This record gives sequence, C-alpha cells and structure tokens, in this order.
Amino acid sequence: MSRQITLEQADTIIAACKAEAVSVGQPMNIAVVDDGGNLVAFASMDGTKLVGVDISQKKALSAVYFQADTRDLAPLVQPGQPLYGIESTTGGRLVVFGGGVLLTGSDGAVAGGVGVSAGTVDEDHQVAEAGRRAYQG
Amino acid sequence: MSRQITLEQADTIIAACKAEAVSVGQPMNIAVVDDGGNLVAFASMDGTKLVGVDISQKKALSAVYFQADTRDLAPLVQPGQPLYGIESTTGGRLVVFGGGVLLTGSDGAVAGGVGVSAGTVDEDHQVAEAGRRAYQG
Amino acid sequence: MSRQITLEQADTIIAACKAEAVSVGQPMNIAVVDDGGNLVAFASMDGTKLVGVDISQKKALSAVYFQADTRDLAPLVQPGQPLYGIESTTGGRLVVFGGGVLLTGSDGAVAGGVGVSAGTVDEDHQVAEAGRRAYQG
Amino acid sequence: MSRQITLEQADTIIAACKAEAVSVGQPMNIAVVDDGGNLVAFASMDGTKLVGVDISQKKALSAVYFQADTRDLAPLVQPGQPLYGIESTTGGRLVVFGGGVLLTGSDGAVAGGVGVSAGTVDEDHQVAEAGRRAYQG
Repeated sequence: MSRQITLEQADTIIAACKAEAVSVGQPMNIAVVDDGGNLVAFASMDGTKLVGVDISQKKALSAVYFQADTRDLAPLVQPGQPLYGIESTTGGRLVVFGGGVLLTGSDGAVAGGVGVSAGTVDEDHQVAEAGRRAYQG
Repeated sequence: MSRQITLEQADTIIAACKAEAVSVGQPMNIAVVDDGGNLVAFASMDGTKLVGVDISQKKALSAVYFQADTRDLAPLVQPGQPLYGIESTTGGRLVVFGGGVLLTGSDGAVAGGVGVSAGTVDEDHQVAEAGRRAYQG
Repeated sequence: MSRQITLEQADTIIAACKAEAVSVGQPMNIAVVDDGGNLVAFASMDGTKLVGVDISQKKALSAVYFQADTRDLAPLVQPGQPLYGIESTTGGRLVVFGGGVLLTGSDGAVAGGVGVSAGTVDEDHQVAEAGRRAYQG
Repeated sequence: MSRQITLEQADTIIAACKAEAVSVGQPMNIAVVDDGGNLVAFASMDGTKLVGVDISQKKALSAVYFQADTRDLAPLVQPGQPLYGIESTTGGRLVVFGGGVLLTGSDGAVAGGVGVSAGTVDEDHQVAEAGRRAYQG
C-alpha cells in the first residue's frame, strides 16, 4: 500500500474541518479516505447526529469513487437523468448529495476524499471544503 | 451502558401507543430505542401488518440518528431536494417518512426514539406522538 | 395472519423471564416470536449487554425454525457433525447454542419461540425456560 | 446523545495507542467507540494492513457489546465451547479474538471500547491496552 495521503495529513484535514464546524455551529462527523477509498481517519464531534457516522464515510468514499465532489452528483441522479438509481449499486455505499469532496495531488491525480455529515448539505460541503483547503493549500 | 431511557419508561411509552392505536382502530408495531439507537422494547399488536415489524424499529432508529421526527425528513428526500437518495445509506436502516418521533430529556439532549408502523403515516405519527407525550409529560 | 401467540401472552412470557433474570442476577435481553418467526415482543433490561439485543431475537427465531430448543443444536453443529457450518446460512439469522426455547400449543403444534441473551448459555436457557413455563403452564 | 466518551478522550486514547504501536514496530488501525457502539474516532497508521480497518472497528464494538475484552471471548467460541458459532450473528459485526478492550467509567459502567488491528492478536491487545490506560489513568 502506497497511500497518497498520510495519517498526519488526514489529521490536519480533520482539524481544519473541526474548526470550520465550530464556526458553522454544527458538530460534525468527519471522514478522510485514501485514493483506494479506505478510511484513514475519522472524528465524530460531541453532540453530533449519529446518522452522519456512516454517511460521512460514504461521502468521502463516493468522492474518490466518482473522482468528483458529491454535490456534483446530485443533478445526475434525479429521475430522468443519466445516473438515476445509481445509489442502489456498490452495496449501498454511495452518497449522491453534497458533503464529500475530492482531494488531488499536485500532479492532479486522486489522493483521497473528505466526507462531512450532520448539518445541511451546504454546511457539510463548506466544512469538507475547509478540510480540502488545509490539504491542498 | 448508561442508557438515557429505562425499560420501565419504554414500557410506559408502548402502553400509551397501544391505547392510541386502539383508539385509531389500527393494530400497530411499536418500537422504542435508546440514545445510541439500540432497541429497548418492542410490541407487535395482534392483527397488525408484518411489514411494520422492521419499519417501526427503523423509524425509531432514524429519529435518533437524525435528531428529528421522521415525517420532517420526507420533504428533504424527494427528487430534486437536498437529501434525495439518503435512504440507500446506513445499511438500509433509515426510514424517511412519518411514524418515528424523537425523545429528548429535560436538558434537551437526545434520549431515544419511538417508531410506529402498520397504518397510514399520519396514523403512525399520531400513535408515536402519544408515546412521546407519555414520556415527556 | 392468525398468529398462534398473542401480544398479551408474549408480555406474560417476558414478565416471567424478567423475574427469573432478577433471580439469576443478570439483566437480560428477551424476545418472543410467533410461529412464523416474526417478533411479537422484546425487552432489554437496564444494565444488560448490547450483544444480546440481536442474539436474543435470533435465538427465538432459531427455536421456531428448527422446532427445537437452541441448546439441542450445539452438538449437531460441531466440526465433523451433521450440521457443521449451518450458522452461515439463512442470512446469519441462526443461533446454535443455548438460550432459545420452543413454544408449542396444547395440540403440540409450534406456537412460537423465546430467546434470551446476556448471561452464560445456561443462565440464558434457564430464563427462557421460565418464560416457557409461564406460557405452557 | 449523551455520550460517555468525548472526542477529546478518544483522541487521547488514539495518541497512546499510536505511541505503543510505534514501540511495537507495527503500524495499526485504531478505533474508539462510545457506550452505544457508535464510532467516535479512528486512525489508520501509515503502512498498516487494510484488513484491520474493518476489524479494529468491530473489535471496539464487540468489547462494548460483550462488556468484555475480546481476547476473553476466544476460549468460549471454540468448537465444543458454549458460544461456538456466535460470530455469525449480529450481522457479522462481532470479533472473537484479541485486540478489543472495554472502557469503563469511574462508576464501573461501560463507557466505550478500543479496537486495534494489524499485528498479532497479542500485539493488537497490547496496543489497545495502552489506550485504555490513557483513558482510565
């Protein structure tokens, strides 16, 4: 395994997400996965919603699997749209709404994903985005 | 385990739900979970529909996981809405229509959830609500 | 659905099991299923072990499915014995050790099952047996 | 949710586990769950084995579910022993060998669990034990 994201980097991402979550006022679940979709680090903030424990991890995975931010998937999965029904595939491990963001290396290759869940999808995305900024500078 | 809801409290909730179900005229499946989403007590009334055995438990879980009544989720998961597709996550354990209500303690913290299933979603919610009143006074 | 065990009977069984569990000194999870294997009533006593929430239900189901007490299955599933490996079937819903007992009606037909979990298998069986006595007199 | 273990405490546990893993010379996957079995924090050290991502979480869960260290389960689940076959229950979420340890509060109640995976079961237990010491002092 030559993971494209280290635990130290994942910890930095989570720290940035936690700070943003405090600023937003919503305790979050935050997950970071590597370029293989495997969990590197996870944190569930005190007082968060339990539903986000699972969903944050799946958002991070979905970002890597699709090589896209999960909010960009939402229009594609609506009734009548090209990926309608896709969330039933992959063993129920895909999330098709906002809160998962893709991490890429300096060469543009996929490095991993960050998933955030417990707030609105906009809040979730905002907090995940803070994690991405901490990673990509 | 320092559960925020005792078995005695759960029994009181189920008794109130049963009385309301009799009043509604629809035998119900009734589930009570604790603040970690674990089942505390369950009752399936004579003559109910078997589909509700599973769904009532998942409604109670969903209320705790989302920190919300499940009927409040319904508008958010429709096509084009922010949480469209969410029910495919969390191992198929989420229910996104009415009949699950959240229990909170006197300090406002999540204490557990009540899920009811076998009638219409309005009937289910009404019966679950009776359980909540019995708990929260 | 013409269930062979009523909710009132299930409540009587659970009450007897709870009294026996207090006597044993081990808070238990207690499940009663009908002759179709569907859950009729469930109680998780304060201070019990969470592992028994699932296992008690599966013990009750297994008693009905096998038309036998689950402790009678244990010798049959050992390496080299006829049912070796059976617990991997039926979607992982079978329990092959003590704590599940079969309920039969006055005509000898299967009426349901009681499953108990959180103590030793002997304690679990003893508590389930108390429930059976309360049902069958 | 009134979790018996905070994220800050979970981070302290993981830091202690990481230090012990470095001392052992085996990069580990480390998971901390609360008293309801829900994941609070997770870290996968650089160069670890991916098999432990899932197993470490299930070890922590199993410690809470059984109110015991997982290495104490191993003798009970062997062929001919009382709990033989138990790992097929609970949706495949139980681990019945060493590496999961139970956290209890000052009142003796279950507070959570720590699960460690990637080394030998003795190494895994040793690293989890270091996390417990950091929590319980």
